[in-house]
Amino acid sequence: MNVITNDILLRTIKGEKVERPPVWLMRQAGRILPEYREVRASVSGFVELVKTPQLAAEVTVQPVDILGVDAAIIFSDILVIPEAMGLPYELIEKKGPFFPETIQSKSQISALIDGVDAAEKLHYVYDAISITKKQLNNRVPLIGFSGAPWTLLAYMIEGQGSKTFSKAKAFLYKEPQLSHLLLDKLTNSIIAYLKLKIQAGVDVVQVFDSWAGMLNKELYLEFCIPYLKRIVDSIAEIPVILFAKGAYFALDEICKLKPDVIGLDWTISASSFREQYDNKQLVQGNLDPCVLYSSSEQIKRRTIEMIDDFDGNHICNLGHGVYPDTPLSGVKEFIQTIKSYKYDY
Amino acid sequence: MNVITNDILLRTIKGEKVERPPVWLMRQAGRILPEYREVRASVSGFVELVKTPQLAAEVTVQPVDILGVDAAIIFSDILVIPEAMGLPYELIEKKGPFFPETIQSKSQISALIDGVDAAEKLHYVYDAISITKKQLNNRVPLIGFSGAPWTLLAYMIEGQGSKTFSKAKAFLYKEPQLSHLLLDKLTNSIIAYLKLKIQAGVDVVQVFDSWAGMLNKELYLEFCIPYLKRIVDSIAEIPVILFAKGAYFALDEICKLKPDVIGLDWTISASSFREQYDNKQLVQGNLDPCVLYSSSEQIKRRTIEMIDDFDGNHICNLGHGVYPDTPLSGVKEFIQTIKSYKYDY
Repeated sequence: MNVITNDILLRTIKGEKVERPPVWLMRQAGRILPEYREVRASVSGFVELVKTPQLAAEVTVQPVDILGVDAAIIFSDILVIPEAMGLPYELIEKKGPFFPETIQSKSQISALIDGVDAAEKLHYVYDAISITKKQLNNRVPLIGFSGAPWTLLAYMIEGQGSKTFSKAKAFLYKEPQLSHLLLDKLTNSIIAYLKLKIQAGVDVVQVFDSWAGMLNKELYLEFCIPYLKRIVDSIAEIPVILFAKGAYFALDEICKLKPDVIGLDWTISASSFREQYDNKQLVQGNLDPCVLYSSSEQIKRRTIEMIDDFDGNHICNLGHGVYPDTPLSGVKEFIQTIKSYKYDY
Repeated sequence: MNVITNDILLRTIKGEKVERPPVWLMRQAGRILPEYREVRASVSGFVELVKTPQLAAEVTVQPVDILGVDAAIIFSDILVIPEAMGLPYELIEKKGPFFPETIQSKSQISALIDGVDAAEKLHYVYDAISITKKQLNNRVPLIGFSGAPWTLLAYMIEGQGSKTFSKAKAFLYKEPQLSHLLLDKLTNSIIAYLKLKIQAGVDVVQVFDSWAGMLNKELYLEFCIPYLKRIVDSIAEIPVILFAKGAYFALDEICKLKPDVIGLDWTISASSFREQYDNKQLVQGNLDPCVLYSSSEQIKRRTIEMIDDFDGNHICNLGHGVYPDTPLSGVKEFIQTIKSYKYDY
């Protein structure tokens, strides 16, 4: 194993004293970069970009070169897992994901393949990881990711994004057993997928439970925590970041899963997290992405306030994926402010 | 003033011992009722229905007759205020509200009329209230409502619904002074509007801060709480219900405003609210609207659990407006369960 030149993310996760918090952005490989938009324009659709390892690797490395972030995150999509299991999706520009067929019955769930059989279909992701690792040449660590079981189920039932995910939630209430059956198969696939990503070379993995906030504590305890526990417990090889957006009501249970890092959205203040939960827990986040639309001075001030408030054990990021129309200057100001920060030990 | 026959809502708000919690549903006058859909089909659009007092009154009374709820809520829309101030909206079926022009500059904000001048334009609402009061004939109390300043600003800047309201939030960060100017004018208009509604005959008012959850504590303290305080403090004549959806991070400050009733969404459990905040606070909510898609037994069980968990000082409602495709049988089961409940004093 080669030594990574900029290893501040890995040292932070190990609990070492670091000179400043590391920084990367969710969705950093994406529309905020003109260089990304150029590559994107050269293919027919988003899914084609995801499935072309050479291009996926290219856009993965771009933010390392252009923004100077402390980690790369492999360019891909959380919905590759449902597709590998037998439920293909499209990505409609400006509208988001769309599943021509959705899951409604037990026979459909039974027909889905899972575990290694599903994960092995995603060779294009592992190829993209191998190419990226070569191109990164050990400059920064590479993060792999997966959607969490509930978030993937939500899309597979709902068929598309939604303000309420009422179809998916209705399924949990109406068909708890079928829900568990699907969540179990998803979990098998996610674990196998993350293992193959690790084999291909990722240094850290993040699990995105993007629609956690649609649920409540009771639903989260029944339909999410047991599966997240299986995932966290299965990945012993490398660090795991768990980001359950909006799941303020389940943070206690999420802490108990002991992922290496807990991602926080912008609604949870550093002080309230530090007071209510494990004070030493390594957290990731959580600047409101909308701050990056504001002035250079304000971005700087709010970023420093955030770092001060967390007071260590902290990986800098936004509290959500960077919004596609964020000015590049704002993104750069955010990253530069963090890289110029010095912890006062 | 006439005596209201079914006054269980008003007795609950007064703090009297009641035999069971009262119940009504946000968006009860709407697409869940076939009788509503019939009236809706007779006009060209949603906005026309809002602006036709006779029809607005008709659909307001429908859920009292058909569902047996303990209160009517006047059929209208929160966006009548921006329109009265000079920014008209349309309601596009299945897509939601749309503003052809949005607020971007100080001159646009200055050009908006506000206070009584704006509120007086909404004669069709007051007419609908008068007609409704006659038709209700004191069977149940009538609730009037308004959007909260932030939620109305959000639509006026964003121009439509959004998963992130990033334009509106960016405006708060980039133009705090203009934001305060607009919020102030909105507050003037909301107070004048609620006063005229009270004059027209409503018995209770509810303020909807539907997009509260997009913010965080810091933004909520700066851009929402002071305006909500002005509203709550201005309405001394009748009870005020304040529902800030998703604002778990500001519940402490919301309690301090001392509205008569605090609306809760489904993510906040009764036990966590009762433990963390004022145990005697009268609250409204908060069954997950998706429960109503499930079986009769499950609706009954979860509704009773909710009532037991709140253990009094409670107005039953969903934790969000009833979703338009909810089965009518589920809505009826919910209401029937509550009406059959008996508090065990």
